[in-house]
Amino acid sequence: MGHGPAFPDLSPRLGALAGCLQALVRRAWSGVVALQHRRDAKPAGEAPDRASAGGEPRADDAFAQAIKSAAPMPPGMVCLVGAGPGSVDLLTLRALRLLGEADVIVHDRLVSDEALHLARADAERIYVGKSRANHCLPQAEINALLVHLARQGRRVVRLKGGDPFVFGRGGEEAAALAEAGIPYQVVPGVTAALACGADAGIPLTHRDAAQMLTLVTGHTRDGRLDIDATALARPNQTLAIYMGLANLPDLVRQLIGAGLDASHPAAIVEAGGTVASRRLDGTLGSLTAMARVLRTAQPALIIIGEVVRLAPAVAPAAALSTRYAGRRPPTWKKPGNRIKPVITAHAGRDATL
Amino acid sequence: MGHGPAFPDLSPRLGALAGCLQALVRRAWSGVVALQHRRDAKPAGEAPDRASAGGEPRADDAFAQAIKSAAPMPPGMVCLVGAGPGSVDLLTLRALRLLGEADVIVHDRLVSDEALHLARADAERIYVGKSRANHCLPQAEINALLVHLARQGRRVVRLKGGDPFVFGRGGEEAAALAEAGIPYQVVPGVTAALACGADAGIPLTHRDAAQMLTLVTGHTRDGRLDIDATALARPNQTLAIYMGLANLPDLVRQLIGAGLDASHPAAIVEAGGTVASRRLDGTLGSLTAMARVLRTAQPALIIIGEVVRLAPAVAPAAALSTRYAGRRPPTWKKPGNRIKPVITAHAGRDATL
Repeated sequence: MGHGPAFPDLSPRLGALAGCLQALVRRAWSGVVALQHRRDAKPAGEAPDRASAGGEPRADDAFAQAIKSAAPMPPGMVCLVGAGPGSVDLLTLRALRLLGEADVIVHDRLVSDEALHLARADAERIYVGKSRANHCLPQAEINALLVHLARQGRRVVRLKGGDPFVFGRGGEEAAALAEAGIPYQVVPGVTAALACGADAGIPLTHRDAAQMLTLVTGHTRDGRLDIDATALARPNQTLAIYMGLANLPDLVRQLIGAGLDASHPAAIVEAGGTVASRRLDGTLGSLTAMARVLRTAQPALIIIGEVVRLAPAVAPAAALSTRYAGRRPPTWKKPGNRIKPVITAHAGRDATL
Repeated sequence: MGHGPAFPDLSPRLGALAGCLQALVRRAWSGVVALQHRRDAKPAGEAPDRASAGGEPRADDAFAQAIKSAAPMPPGMVCLVGAGPGSVDLLTLRALRLLGEADVIVHDRLVSDEALHLARADAERIYVGKSRANHCLPQAEINALLVHLARQGRRVVRLKGGDPFVFGRGGEEAAALAEAGIPYQVVPGVTAALACGADAGIPLTHRDAAQMLTLVTGHTRDGRLDIDATALARPNQTLAIYMGLANLPDLVRQLIGAGLDASHPAAIVEAGGTVASRRLDGTLGSLTAMARVLRTAQPALIIIGEVVRLAPAVAPAAALSTRYAGRRPPTWKKPGNRIKPVITAHAGRDATL
């Protein structure tokens, strides 16, 4: 992996500006942190400047408290950081700050190049792979690597697509770190279901139609489908199915077998949370046909539930300039038993079907 | 609401630094956007500088694409923006950018003062309330307000705690905007379940114990509990129950009635995703007793499932300096049928039980 310039692939001026952004943010944060440390050091006898004792803390205190969590990462610590769904601007400010502090970034396939570019120029990047059932490094070796790097006294960011604790095996990494006595922290991220709902204009919950949102993975340890179809077929819930394409025919068969109607609304959101995101509308019965027109190699999320029908007839604004195969407007009708117009939620100008 | 300085409540120097942060970020973003627009304007005959035609886009292009989504918000647009769980540094970069562009911020109770401070100094702030069953403005009036403000040609950010489409009624707002022909966008945010899992060190999914994560609300339209206990009592799932405290005894009774054992692991995470977050460990049977020792007025999330037991025996690092009532270390044993040590996931120094 080795060291190198922060933005090796970017055109020089764009790279310089992006570098400027990270430097400015880092400097501003550390300025606030430094000031906060000075504030903490004031004489113990001095009265706290609260508006009212015992009442709600003032914004002053609340802000200071928030900033306290921005204390720099100590050497030998591992932060399991959610990188969100892809677009670099869906990173959290906390993730951005930690990327700027880490000596080494351990990342997988779902993390975008742009996110990696926000790390320090001299930080080492280590790719540990992970596409479905084809891990670059087995999980046990990733765990061991994190422990090893921390014991070298390095500040480690383990950067994971989405959220570290949602289908990311972050729990296994946290357990390994805890067992080895390595201090660690977990930084949540925007998980794919949220990004896909937002991009596609599909509300994941709705008081009239879905009091439950169930996130479920379509593959398990050995790549075999192992869902609880009985639970997933219950009414008044939205299903967000991660990695569901590989076993899609079996998935659909099981859900229909458990009682869901083939006409139940369903959508596929491809590359949600990135500039290339696209949506297909249909039904449980048409999902398999819908999946055939997806571009390959893009992560896709399946959303099943009445909320697909309840989504506004007009897509979110970022999609207004896009067209289905250059011919259809970005609106859709109630799902019938066939494939519906593709909605591109972001400005993916070259989106074609 | 009116106009006013950006940081009226902050001590002047801290406020100045925070103002500096927002100004720097805004300037850096607009610089990148401006450069991107110049790049787009190059003569049509000029060859695209791709490394290989038809192959994967270069990082250069990918970054440029990401930046395109940073085109400034046009007048008359409404962005439904997730503010995340509370800590200002769990805002996304996209939310930060939009806060800096909006002419008016329409926000509710769960949005932190610090997030509002990141809005433009001259932006109007409109509070529309929303504590449980005690809405400051009825939802229909909030919808009408958003339409009204957009029709005035203002750039509107509707800032919502957590994610706009998870128990936030963002779907109803999106529908109203779409119906009125107002361009809108939805920006996902870190929802409470993710923040609470991260803070508490509880993996929400685990390949050995939970292939499903179900988010469910403990109250409905009329404040009455209306859960599908049969679905929630299924094995191999994690339940994240939002706003579950008000109807907790009934909730526990229904889950046990549907087949969950009273010894099933359960935790309460209070104020997750803020510097004051705390965790209580126990079981389904002890939840009601656990809830009695919570501070009031703080949002709390209930997590039920084997993952509570699978959480590492050592809490995430940010909690290492905290103590249970000043007496216990921040570790916990397997949940028995009683209340377990409180874990404060962030540096809430004054956390007491």
